[in-house]
Amino acid sequence: MQYRIEKDTMGEVQVPADVYWGAQTQRSIENFKIAQDINKMPKEIIKAFAYLKHGAALANNELGVLPKEKADLIGTVCNEILAGKLDDQFPLVVWQTGSGTQSNMNCNEVIAYRGHVLQGGDLGDKQKFLHPNDDINKSQSSNDTFPTAMHIAAYKMLIEVTIPGIEKLRDTLAAKSAEFMNVVKIGRTHFMDATPLTVGQEFSGYVSQLNHGLKAIKNTLEHLSELALGGTAVGTGINTPAGYSEVVAKHIANLTGLPFITAENKFEALAAHDAIVEAHGALKTVAASLMKIANDVRMLSSGPRAGIGELFIPDNEPGSSIMPGKVNPTQCEALTMIAAQVMGNDVAINFGGAMGHFELNVFKPVMIYNFLHSARLIGEGCVSFNDKCAVGIAPLEENIKKHVNNSLMLVTALNTKIGYYKAAEIAQTAHKNGSTLKETAISLGYLTAEEFDEWVKPEDMVGSLK
Amino acid sequence: MQYRIEKDTMGEVQVPADVYWGAQTQRSIENFKIAQDINKMPKEIIKAFAYLKHGAALANNELGVLPKEKADLIGTVCNEILAGKLDDQFPLVVWQTGSGTQSNMNCNEVIAYRGHVLQGGDLGDKQKFLHPNDDINKSQSSNDTFPTAMHIAAYKMLIEVTIPGIEKLRDTLAAKSAEFMNVVKIGRTHFMDATPLTVGQEFSGYVSQLNHGLKAIKNTLEHLSELALGGTAVGTGINTPAGYSEVVAKHIANLTGLPFITAENKFEALAAHDAIVEAHGALKTVAASLMKIANDVRMLSSGPRAGIGELFIPDNEPGSSIMPGKVNPTQCEALTMIAAQVMGNDVAINFGGAMGHFELNVFKPVMIYNFLHSARLIGEGCVSFNDKCAVGIAPLEENIKKHVNNSLMLVTALNTKIGYYKAAEIAQTAHKNGSTLKETAISLGYLTAEEFDEWVKPEDMVGSLK
Amino acid sequence: MQYRIEKDTMGEVQVPADVYWGAQTQRSIENFKIAQDINKMPKEIIKAFAYLKHGAALANNELGVLPKEKADLIGTVCNEILAGKLDDQFPLVVWQTGSGTQSNMNCNEVIAYRGHVLQGGDLGDKQKFLHPNDDINKSQSSNDTFPTAMHIAAYKMLIEVTIPGIEKLRDTLAAKSAEFMNVVKIGRTHFMDATPLTVGQEFSGYVSQLNHGLKAIKNTLEHLSELALGGTAVGTGINTPAGYSEVVAKHIANLTGLPFITAENKFEALAAHDAIVEAHGALKTVAASLMKIANDVRMLSSGPRAGIGELFIPDNEPGSSIMPGKVNPTQCEALTMIAAQVMGNDVAINFGGAMGHFELNVFKPVMIYNFLHSARLIGEGCVSFNDKCAVGIAPLEENIKKHVNNSLMLVTALNTKIGYYKAAEIAQTAHKNGSTLKETAISLGYLTAEEFDEWVKPEDMVGSLK
Amino acid sequence: MQYRIEKDTMGEVQVPADVYWGAQTQRSIENFKIAQDINKMPKEIIKAFAYLKHGAALANNELGVLPKEKADLIGTVCNEILAGKLDDQFPLVVWQTGSGTQSNMNCNEVIAYRGHVLQGGDLGDKQKFLHPNDDINKSQSSNDTFPTAMHIAAYKMLIEVTIPGIEKLRDTLAAKSAEFMNVVKIGRTHFMDATPLTVGQEFSGYVSQLNHGLKAIKNTLEHLSELALGGTAVGTGINTPAGYSEVVAKHIANLTGLPFITAENKFEALAAHDAIVEAHGALKTVAASLMKIANDVRMLSSGPRAGIGELFIPDNEPGSSIMPGKVNPTQCEALTMIAAQVMGNDVAINFGGAMGHFELNVFKPVMIYNFLHSARLIGEGCVSFNDKCAVGIAPLEENIKKHVNNSLMLVTALNTKIGYYKAAEIAQTAHKNGSTLKETAISLGYLTAEEFDEWVKPEDMVGSLK
Repeated sequence: MQYRIEKDTMGEVQVPADVYWGAQTQRSIENFKIAQDINKMPKEIIKAFAYLKHGAALANNELGVLPKEKADLIGTVCNEILAGKLDDQFPLVVWQTGSGTQSNMNCNEVIAYRGHVLQGGDLGDKQKFLHPNDDINKSQSSNDTFPTAMHIAAYKMLIEVTIPGIEKLRDTLAAKSAEFMNVVKIGRTHFMDATPLTVGQEFSGYVSQLNHGLKAIKNTLEHLSELALGGTAVGTGINTPAGYSEVVAKHIANLTGLPFITAENKFEALAAHDAIVEAHGALKTVAASLMKIANDVRMLSSGPRAGIGELFIPDNEPGSSIMPGKVNPTQCEALTMIAAQVMGNDVAINFGGAMGHFELNVFKPVMIYNFLHSARLIGEGCVSFNDKCAVGIAPLEENIKKHVNNSLMLVTALNTKIGYYKAAEIAQTAHKNGSTLKETAISLGYLTAEEFDEWVKPEDMVGSLK
Repeated sequence: MQYRIEKDTMGEVQVPADVYWGAQTQRSIENFKIAQDINKMPKEIIKAFAYLKHGAALANNELGVLPKEKADLIGTVCNEILAGKLDDQFPLVVWQTGSGTQSNMNCNEVIAYRGHVLQGGDLGDKQKFLHPNDDINKSQSSNDTFPTAMHIAAYKMLIEVTIPGIEKLRDTLAAKSAEFMNVVKIGRTHFMDATPLTVGQEFSGYVSQLNHGLKAIKNTLEHLSELALGGTAVGTGINTPAGYSEVVAKHIANLTGLPFITAENKFEALAAHDAIVEAHGALKTVAASLMKIANDVRMLSSGPRAGIGELFIPDNEPGSSIMPGKVNPTQCEALTMIAAQVMGNDVAINFGGAMGHFELNVFKPVMIYNFLHSARLIGEGCVSFNDKCAVGIAPLEENIKKHVNNSLMLVTALNTKIGYYKAAEIAQTAHKNGSTLKETAISLGYLTAEEFDEWVKPEDMVGSLK
Repeated sequence: MQYRIEKDTMGEVQVPADVYWGAQTQRSIENFKIAQDINKMPKEIIKAFAYLKHGAALANNELGVLPKEKADLIGTVCNEILAGKLDDQFPLVVWQTGSGTQSNMNCNEVIAYRGHVLQGGDLGDKQKFLHPNDDINKSQSSNDTFPTAMHIAAYKMLIEVTIPGIEKLRDTLAAKSAEFMNVVKIGRTHFMDATPLTVGQEFSGYVSQLNHGLKAIKNTLEHLSELALGGTAVGTGINTPAGYSEVVAKHIANLTGLPFITAENKFEALAAHDAIVEAHGALKTVAASLMKIANDVRMLSSGPRAGIGELFIPDNEPGSSIMPGKVNPTQCEALTMIAAQVMGNDVAINFGGAMGHFELNVFKPVMIYNFLHSARLIGEGCVSFNDKCAVGIAPLEENIKKHVNNSLMLVTALNTKIGYYKAAEIAQTAHKNGSTLKETAISLGYLTAEEFDEWVKPEDMVGSLK
Repeated sequence: MQYRIEKDTMGEVQVPADVYWGAQTQRSIENFKIAQDINKMPKEIIKAFAYLKHGAALANNELGVLPKEKADLIGTVCNEILAGKLDDQFPLVVWQTGSGTQSNMNCNEVIAYRGHVLQGGDLGDKQKFLHPNDDINKSQSSNDTFPTAMHIAAYKMLIEVTIPGIEKLRDTLAAKSAEFMNVVKIGRTHFMDATPLTVGQEFSGYVSQLNHGLKAIKNTLEHLSELALGGTAVGTGINTPAGYSEVVAKHIANLTGLPFITAENKFEALAAHDAIVEAHGALKTVAASLMKIANDVRMLSSGPRAGIGELFIPDNEPGSSIMPGKVNPTQCEALTMIAAQVMGNDVAINFGGAMGHFELNVFKPVMIYNFLHSARLIGEGCVSFNDKCAVGIAPLEENIKKHVNNSLMLVTALNTKIGYYKAAEIAQTAHKNGSTLKETAISLGYLTAEEFDEWVKPEDMVGSLK
């Protein structure tokens, strides 16, 4: 391989001749040989840095500390990054310095050197038109840029992937709820037969869970909308021009089209990432909901002959490499595995979030890595579950009817007629004898056949249907 | 011991002669011999049931299904429970049925039989004036009462203990922040010396964390304000009079003075406890904040001679059974242990929350046990930390000055004067030689003594102080 | 209340006149008003201290630094503690200093002052016969006593409660496995019908899980058998007589009847509690096993008419306050809630275990509190589940037969006869048409009725039964 | 793109013309569009399948159910997979069916079709020489192959990456411990000055932690050495030739050079992955150790001027994009982030491990994904921390001396001379007056200068050095 020499404050470094990165990126590659093939810094963070660096250049120019020519050039490279043209220029991993300094410098170096080339220079030039620290990183520190990139990436992922994914599934389940609102089925509590409800009512519970989950996520957006940028090294804003924090937040808001504002308190914004901990608390809530929903769907569709068998779900693939003709609830399985992953990611984030010290939390990369992972898995998992499973759900009415009509728990309707104790005696006797409620009730002399037929109607036991 | 005989639908049970509970409570004592001395159902749940049963009696009376005499009697007993007069009548543990049915029945039995006695009856009477199921539990099921009690207890604890505790600590830290706003100190990032800030700025970060945490908790109250009551067995509201859900929620709101409403969707309210999962997500966020704050305080007060030694904290007790004169940051330790506990409780709640099935989540007791534990620990832990530590914090100005004046990171002020690279050279040379920044800067010829004194002023490096 | 005055190195403290504790215990009561009614230091830790203080007195006497009279007196009080006579003398909570110093001093004070009284003195005497620090704590520090007490308490709980509890359940399940070894049933994978196995085989998997779990627990005992005692303040053993570590470990081993040894490395023993983290890793593994087993049992016994209904489990109590005659798998629910709790406790322990610093881990109380909680819940939970559920499990053979005979997955037996693809075609066709495998196989022309009867026999599809 | 048509039991599928995979792989790509760029099934699982499929072919041939020609061809392709020649043929993600069926089929298809091509056939041939199900998957099911691959991959990773990585770091720390055994330093407990020890003693604690951690990992290998293969669909071994389980385990042991055996109980081996839960419990224990060690190192090397500054660690890269000359403990940060990740992964694994149902656990992919992640991060993280940090650690003796000599806790040496209370008075007085212990002791009249010098020697307070 061909190399060129780049320098940083510690000295010279050999860098592959044709890459845009420089000395500090190269040092990080060599210093952190940890899971390099599987744990690259998430691409969403790189794109967030593109917005950030562009916004900072605009702010620096607006405030008179960076010439327009440089600001424009920086913007051009940032747009290339957003367009995916420089994807292979960001080789660093999550397991680096906990401030993300090296990924910040990776961005600074790539923007500076790519800008230099765009402007007509050569990668081998000693002196380059843009300087990674003095131009690209102007009025910034890793300590305020990385958390800013965290918030940009997290907010965007929630808005673009997580929330729409959940909403898509929610809408399908809401439509199913309406469609099945009159299909009376046996209820199950403790896995045991209970009083009836309708399939639509059951699904309305899922819809309500997801609506609450969406609200929980949205409640956390405000904290995530606060940007650390302007705090620089320790939160004091050293080396920034007056008014910088507000101006740069405005530019980032414009570039992203999202309502970012400058954080009211920059000391928190560098030293703690409670916004990430909090927002992921909403994501783990949704994970709990999805676990419940997917579990219900797979249990209700279990069988086909020795299970519950009350729901049809689509057959997407052969289910077994040994059992011919087997079909499995595979989308439920992917979704519940995702839920398990999110529960784990939550703990990794909690650990990182709890262990900031003094002016800086240095668990930034691991926190955002897990956050983006969860946010994406939930969003894409919901879409997959929706498209390949939920849209095709249908009640298997024959089984549903059989179950509801056999159920001993219809006896509950008699509580208000003959009291809890006599009702219990009917159910227990029927269970022991394998008889029906009706014949037992009559033989015990507690009511007549006519009374039974009038009082025990599953369709009257499900309350109001809306 | 003397016994009397009580009956339930399964038959006769021997019950201690003088207790107010009945057959089902007794069965649970015998069936669940698990941690009976340490894991009683939280008393807050028992009190929540007192509000609930009173509210239900009022609603049943208002809707014409319970005579006023009975409703009044129920209310009287409920008030006794709230006054703590019947504390020894609730012997059941968390590790029972996952619906909390047995604790619901414990309440039903105690209220019925105590009411019977109050009304002039005898515990040994076969026929009692109030019936646990038909009167006390009227228009209710364990499946909607227990989750209702969960929300009442959780909401009350947050309002009465958690939030005031956090606010108390927040207020003290805010006062300290204002008081120490002009005390310039060295910043620390990565545990390493960084540019200066003031002690007040540092504390303002803690205040901001707690303010965000309070907001996060408050965001979850709305979901917690939804009551399951009226859903009865499976969410359909079977065996409730028309309008019951709204009326009973109104009565509970009146009795508690808290803004409870009936849950929009009762199927969710029984089958999932996402509100608990979500609200505890806010509590774990606060735990992360407290871990950070308490860690900072103990590290900043470390020493007295071989540590950082920048903060004084009160000496509350001898610190060592072997090292004479030792004083330790014990309040910090209690608070960080609490934070660890809350992180664990969060996972227990997540497990329970994710594993509801069909019409009922049967992890109710373990979920609320952990929730109330966390909510109380945070509230009382903040008060203890506040009263015995935070209120006495004071800067140790001599050490603080020494640290800031020695720091090599003041060189950052020169970035905008001589560029990042030359500034780095000064710092690195001074570090290598053990010399001061000023003498190094001059000897390297990068600036004059006058320039140094003008440009490198810690007090000018801390930004605006508000 | 009457008070007396006690003193420590910080000065005078008012103590209730008739308690055996002294100044430092009293300070802790006043300094840590956190969950005082529910989070007392576990009684197992107090008893472990009784063994430890007795062992230390014996070792100090043997090594010539404590007179026999004092050692004997200390031993007498320790035996009183073990007999439960002084239970109300240990009022401190978990949420105290992270080294457990205050509980160590509580023990030192109670032993000294109770000893003084036993020896004829009066609690009000200024000068007492035994001194908490100089006699009871001789050759010790909180820093080595508390971790020693942690290991004693943890080891004892595992040996006396956890392991016997798991073994009891394992033995019952093993007997059930043998008993049901020939009951052929339908297998279920992905909740879907699969090839058959026997109920006994299914239960043998549970037995194997618990056997592996027992082995995992036992693997961790060796690390737990190492005692920190002799390390004193920081691990160097300052202020101990020569040979003390080995002698005191020998005495503790004798007193407890358990194979305790002195820790090879005292620096680890004070600064880290990896033994607790590791041993709880085995407990959480067992929790995962129990969650699986209890989930299976409740799902297999679901119904009675609209569930799987293949297992009978005992009816222990009325299951519903509203649905008459309902019986629920309540022991399964208690056990799965316990499993959830253990999973949470694990994370609390991980947090504490990861956050020791320098020469001392100061998350000791929270770690042992969670450990003992889990160890006890598993042990007592297994016994409860065993006695009230597992012993009564029986197959419901009618349902079992119906399910296995209807199953389409018996087709798997044909793979080796007609190939996977044709077998799949048979199953899919039968499923679509609601027909039996046999009639479909014949109508498709792939085999004769005789071939089908010879090849497709559930009882031949279950492998060897041992 | 060019396509060809492949078929499975559900019908025809368009597959890219030049790939070796077939219909079922292609269905999975289309059905699970979840994190496809970042969550590929770990390559270690693919390689484990190569060993497994080769071993199965050898066993099938040995037992007379597969011709030698086919077995050899399968072996050839498996060797290509192990050599990395077919890396791009495994496009599936973790978020698929929970049994890993689709990855098993991906392997079956690639081996069959690549084998067909190697043998001279063409990918477009309708009839191929090897059949994915009937040849490659012979005597197997996804349900026993995937857990077998899990154990092979997990065991190999522990042996090849995790254990050697930990051992490397352990060896370096042991060498440092020996080298620094006589460097006396101040101890720190509760972050506060305590009695002295040596740097070598402190490091010996780290070595002991890692040794115990290695032992904990090795304790779990036996459970991991058990292979599920031979259980096929539900554990009964349907469709396997007699003796198959033992023979195939022997071949896999030969091929891998690792001591794999057939699982004693196949029902457990399919339905539960407690071996993974248990082994990861050991990994999380090591994570706790590493968090402690890395935290100590970064705090002890904090400064350079306003921290503790007792350890030198290598400068690997410029530490700040804004603070010139700053050097940070970046390797400590990567390692502590890894520890946080492992703690999170543990919870994901616990969730998956606890939620197997009936004859199959369907959280297999998420469990092994997290396991391999942790095992690799720990191994590679230890090597990185070792090579770039630990090997360069050196004591900063000047600071160390200053701290130990100033310390008030040297007073502990006087406990046995003048009693705890007088010693405490000396320390407290010296602390209040800012005086030395010696001058205070003398002025209080408790001892002479000569006595002080004789009794208070830090180097005599550290116990025996070995």
